[in-house]
Amino acid sequence: MSTPRKVQVGILGCGTVGSGVAHALLTRRRLLAERAGIEVVVKRIAAKRVLAKRPVRIPRSLVTSSVNNLLDDKEIDIIVELIGGVHPAKEYILKALQNGKHVVTANKALIAEEGKSLFSAAKKAGRELYFEASVGGGIPIVKAIREGFITNHIESLYAIINGTSNYILTQMSQQGLEFRQALAEAQKRGYAERNPALDINGNDAAHKLAILCLLAFGRFVPLEKIYTEGISRITANDLQYAQALGYSVKLLAIGKQEKGEVEARVHPTLIPQQHLLASVKGVYNAIYLRGDMVGKSLLYGRGAGQMPTASAVISDIVDLARNIAHGVPQRMGFPSMNSPSLGIKPMWEVESRYYIRILAQDKPGVLAEVARILGRHQISIASVIQQEKIHSRMLPVVMMTHQAQEKAMQGALRQIDRLNTIHSPSLAIRVEEAGL
Amino acid sequence: MSTPRKVQVGILGCGTVGSGVAHALLTRRRLLAERAGIEVVVKRIAAKRVLAKRPVRIPRSLVTSSVNNLLDDKEIDIIVELIGGVHPAKEYILKALQNGKHVVTANKALIAEEGKSLFSAAKKAGRELYFEASVGGGIPIVKAIREGFITNHIESLYAIINGTSNYILTQMSQQGLEFRQALAEAQKRGYAERNPALDINGNDAAHKLAILCLLAFGRFVPLEKIYTEGISRITANDLQYAQALGYSVKLLAIGKQEKGEVEARVHPTLIPQQHLLASVKGVYNAIYLRGDMVGKSLLYGRGAGQMPTASAVISDIVDLARNIAHGVPQRMGFPSMNSPSLGIKPMWEVESRYYIRILAQDKPGVLAEVARILGRHQISIASVIQQEKIHSRMLPVVMMTHQAQEKAMQGALRQIDRLNTIHSPSLAIRVEEAGL
Repeated sequence: MSTPRKVQVGILGCGTVGSGVAHALLTRRRLLAERAGIEVVVKRIAAKRVLAKRPVRIPRSLVTSSVNNLLDDKEIDIIVELIGGVHPAKEYILKALQNGKHVVTANKALIAEEGKSLFSAAKKAGRELYFEASVGGGIPIVKAIREGFITNHIESLYAIINGTSNYILTQMSQQGLEFRQALAEAQKRGYAERNPALDINGNDAAHKLAILCLLAFGRFVPLEKIYTEGISRITANDLQYAQALGYSVKLLAIGKQEKGEVEARVHPTLIPQQHLLASVKGVYNAIYLRGDMVGKSLLYGRGAGQMPTASAVISDIVDLARNIAHGVPQRMGFPSMNSPSLGIKPMWEVESRYYIRILAQDKPGVLAEVARILGRHQISIASVIQQEKIHSRMLPVVMMTHQAQEKAMQGALRQIDRLNTIHSPSLAIRVEEAGL
Repeated sequence: MSTPRKVQVGILGCGTVGSGVAHALLTRRRLLAERAGIEVVVKRIAAKRVLAKRPVRIPRSLVTSSVNNLLDDKEIDIIVELIGGVHPAKEYILKALQNGKHVVTANKALIAEEGKSLFSAAKKAGRELYFEASVGGGIPIVKAIREGFITNHIESLYAIINGTSNYILTQMSQQGLEFRQALAEAQKRGYAERNPALDINGNDAAHKLAILCLLAFGRFVPLEKIYTEGISRITANDLQYAQALGYSVKLLAIGKQEKGEVEARVHPTLIPQQHLLASVKGVYNAIYLRGDMVGKSLLYGRGAGQMPTASAVISDIVDLARNIAHGVPQRMGFPSMNSPSLGIKPMWEVESRYYIRILAQDKPGVLAEVARILGRHQISIASVIQQEKIHSRMLPVVMMTHQAQEKAMQGALRQIDRLNTIHSPSLAIRVEEAGL
């Protein structure tokens, strides 16, 4: 290892993450040579606008507007895809693989939606496709599950994997802000996009959950089978009630494997305040999981941002560079989709406790009516908080239920919201406790 | 990868961890073949007492009392050293390397004390020496630092890496137990050895810190240069005072790299109650670190125990097995001790805030005298708590200082303890806050 083998990299995309990866590779070439015994060289970067201003300095001579300049360059060993979106990213990756290049991507939508066909194309091409940065930004969660926990059956995972939502919920809880105010604050600080839909409606988390389920359970869960609910209906009051009951509210991506079925869902969730996940504040991410050998584990860190994401991308590049230097075309292989027979549990059958918040008229008999509806659906109430009025004549009432089935809860909520004495829509938030 | 390559393993030691590794490898052979494309076979296990009762079922035919039966077996690719202690573990490993075998060990004392010579022997032999389970049990921290964060300069790390101490401090804090009671409880539950010295005096944590510093800073810190202080002088009262001031007390292993110097120390530490590390309870471990690209990160899990440790050992075995299957003798290389020029900061020069607890006679002028001594050492007091008497005529007084140098603090404490009006010894606990 005295003369390090040279591995050449081509980067597609020179936005925030792309320029971060390029900058770090250019400035840390010696560090990586020392640590890995390999010289990682940035051969070329493809960008839409060659002359654009970048957040970090990138030599103009490296930048080209032609993607094919990279994909067809015989000297490039690894293509790093950082343009995002499903198309044309997919087509570029397929061409790179066909041309004998290994690929690193940070593209969660692509892996979640097209992972199956991309992995099979890579396998056929005798090359690898790495994706550490597609989940949890700088957190080495892909490596931890695929390598560190390789001999474990993962039983369940609970992940805070959307920094925007976690920032908003943290602000709402700590500053008493309402959702819209906290969202505006997040946008001001650059933690939320101008169009924040993908983050706050849970879809971003669902993409990442699909990848985590594939890694943890060996089962590809199509996005449309992941129940997904965002945080926009949560109020500052809900967070206060939850707190009074000993809970925090987090947008969790939950995956479980039990009795031959995989459960995959994203929604706001009450978790006990003392739980480690409740201490994950602001834009940070964390993945908590239970392996049958390793027990409860958690990995925490920045889930997004230029340099945290670049850190993960470069860890993939170095892994591949080591393999290339040793002439190993496929060392890691692909997420083994070895459990196609695992069913996917429909959301209707999922069971949990619930936090229910209704706005009821302050009239005798209203609560009794609500309790009757819940009882008819086999849902029993564990505790009730009834506070002073906030709306004229409307009284917020919060109930914690015992274990109930989603189907029953949705049926009950529909009936409750049909009552004249209730200001609809009522809100139900699932509770996770026993499994955590 | 349709017919998996077979890799054969010999295990030295069939105690708790050894039998766990053997059992898991024997029962999960198909799982590993599916996931890694490699058949990992337990060829033989060396145990002192071949017929001993084991915590899990191990076929008698695999067990031998002769270590050389394994070290000289040409079919064995990987030797797993799980006998612990420095000798003869070191000699066995050296022989295994000379015989062309790769080695996996969970032996923290060995790596901390003999790592340098072992890595150089492995390098010379053209083989690898893996040690994931030597720090943090089932937590994939070695992999995270060496691979996940490879392009980061690690600035600092703060680790709860002794489960026994953390269990004792947790019990003291939650149940109001005194140290001896909590220790007895830990022994009853099997979380502390009959002779608990190594755990409670900080030496176990110091061993692990030496390994973490090597990985994070590229600098081998000899054990005798790691300031090490255990938890036995902490009282239940200290934990209560700390709590009242907004802090938790944890036995932290702290490593920092700053201005060309490495700081490495193990001691009880006050940390803010809201910090993630304060939520690490019971026997759990966590390593919190700051990388210059990835930012703040934390890995949490079981730091000991049969199956968590076996999980980490097997992850090393599979990594090596992948290399062996692909004919790669040295893929990862060795912790680059690339910073021999980094100095090691002497403890006397370390600066922090301090929590000081003294027992003073309830007489006029005593506190003024203490404050004068602190002042003469350039130590200024930030706040004081003075509670009602507990001893006859003795008053516990707790002070929080501003930033001060260790040398000054020790000098001041010596003078304070010489006062007739003070019941010595007084206690000072360092505070970590700003860097966390």
